[in-house]
Amino acid sequence: MNFKEELEQKVQRINEVIKSYLPREEGFQKTLMEAMNYSMLSGGKRLRPLLMQETYRMFGGTERVVEPFMAAMEMIHTHSLIHDDLPALDNDEYRRGRKTTHVVYGEAMAILAGDALLNYAYETAAMSFSMDEDRKRTTEAFRILTKKTGVYGMLGGQCVDVQSEGQAVSKEKLDFIYRLKTSALIEASMMVGAVLGGATKEQVSIVEKAARDVGLAFQIQDDILDVVSTMEVLGKPVFSDEENQKTTYVTIEGIEKAGKEVEEISGRALEALDSLGFTNPFLRELIQSLVHREK
Amino acid sequence: MNFKEELEQKVQRINEVIKSYLPREEGFQKTLMEAMNYSMLSGGKRLRPLLMQETYRMFGGTERVVEPFMAAMEMIHTHSLIHDDLPALDNDEYRRGRKTTHVVYGEAMAILAGDALLNYAYETAAMSFSMDEDRKRTTEAFRILTKKTGVYGMLGGQCVDVQSEGQAVSKEKLDFIYRLKTSALIEASMMVGAVLGGATKEQVSIVEKAARDVGLAFQIQDDILDVVSTMEVLGKPVFSDEENQKTTYVTIEGIEKAGKEVEEISGRALEALDSLGFTNPFLRELIQSLVHREK
Repeated sequence: MNFKEELEQKVQRINEVIKSYLPREEGFQKTLMEAMNYSMLSGGKRLRPLLMQETYRMFGGTERVVEPFMAAMEMIHTHSLIHDDLPALDNDEYRRGRKTTHVVYGEAMAILAGDALLNYAYETAAMSFSMDEDRKRTTEAFRILTKKTGVYGMLGGQCVDVQSEGQAVSKEKLDFIYRLKTSALIEASMMVGAVLGGATKEQVSIVEKAARDVGLAFQIQDDILDVVSTMEVLGKPVFSDEENQKTTYVTIEGIEKAGKEVEEISGRALEALDSLGFTNPFLRELIQSLVHREK
Repeated sequence: MNFKEELEQKVQRINEVIKSYLPREEGFQKTLMEAMNYSMLSGGKRLRPLLMQETYRMFGGTERVVEPFMAAMEMIHTHSLIHDDLPALDNDEYRRGRKTTHVVYGEAMAILAGDALLNYAYETAAMSFSMDEDRKRTTEAFRILTKKTGVYGMLGGQCVDVQSEGQAVSKEKLDFIYRLKTSALIEASMMVGAVLGGATKEQVSIVEKAARDVGLAFQIQDDILDVVSTMEVLGKPVFSDEENQKTTYVTIEGIEKAGKEVEEISGRALEALDSLGFTNPFLRELIQSLVHREK
């Protein structure tokens, strides 16, 4: 089985895991559950749960305790997309080739669906406590997940991103935005995998740095694709950064240098992971594929 | 010291606890922290943390492990107010006599501040894990907190509330809305207090039912005040339910019957708490004061 087939199989399996943790669409609040599930089942790459699972396995993890966290991570990510797409923020009508949540369910329901997904993420992750005898690893994983999602993580990044629109942004600030807005959830994914797999504090810290680089490379590649891809391939409008007057790695450094940075940064991430002395060839290849992805 | 003085003293102490858990306003994402703190420090009644603390004490609790949960509960409550006030939802410009978050910080920042507060609540509650040797009580308290906040709790209630505006609502549906939208967080407050205080499952279940009644009585009193109070006393516009064509206990039953229900339901709650065989005279008086409150 080659990498692409293995990837497809793993993503399919992850989709089943995620599905099994979604709320049933019933009761007076049925519409809210529908809106949550609509967004969750719109075919994302499942990159974060995948990175979590593969890091967990790299550290020798074989149990199901990682599954609630995988589902939770995708819920957190999806929550951020729903709110990011709102008229008051990016005002996007399409995402992954489908209409965004607020277009289908209205703005009020999209706000509530985003809230409900963020909360449901923690409700779901809390299911892991009963799968962990002394609750040591799961509570530590939980702590990391909340921190990397919040004001010192993804949500903090969203704030600075929103405030920077239409403004000149320094490289320092751009790095800050990328580190929080994109890397934070990648860091959380790989760190949670490591913690649940029994990694030491030092190992978790190395994983954190590697994940930060993976996220950074991923985001710069996103900047590049916004300029070189098409809506058909990407499933969302291209040249959106230019339209929103956003500073990106491409606007600061040009496409060529940005491309080189992607290679360099992802190489650094792989070296750090290799230094841990564990092996997971699939994880290695997955990170490399992010560099060369076309959507 | 009479009840009113004791209440004031306790609320002041709770305000200090809450303050100690708020994020420092610094870094590129400073505005987000300011928006979070603006909403958190706008002088609420602190009813939920107070109920949590007093239930905790009723069960003999004396430690600080309840404090992160008290702060978390107020953050969750405040998150719901920020999002509830948004133009796409209730579109309220005043709350507790001050301009609402989206009026001061703009809609995008209000959405993010609400998200960030919900997340920070769990980040804060997660601090309790290290205060609890075997993490049994804190993880159970956490589980309850997430469940009562989410799609089967407060947020589910918000959804049905939003969808019901301008429509005829049955008594059954109204009870559902009140149970989820208002009671769920009161239930969580008292249940978390009980769990952290060492209550048995049966005791927690009795507390849950009593808290549900406390929440219901509180919400019906809210309906009554919307009709009989003034903006000066209430700190928010009156007759807002009528303006929003909302079905309430008052529109279904009339003021007099609604008033009787408040007495009856809160009496039932007190009986249930008394049946536990513990005593906390302050908690008893607090619940009674909710019935006779004027704002």
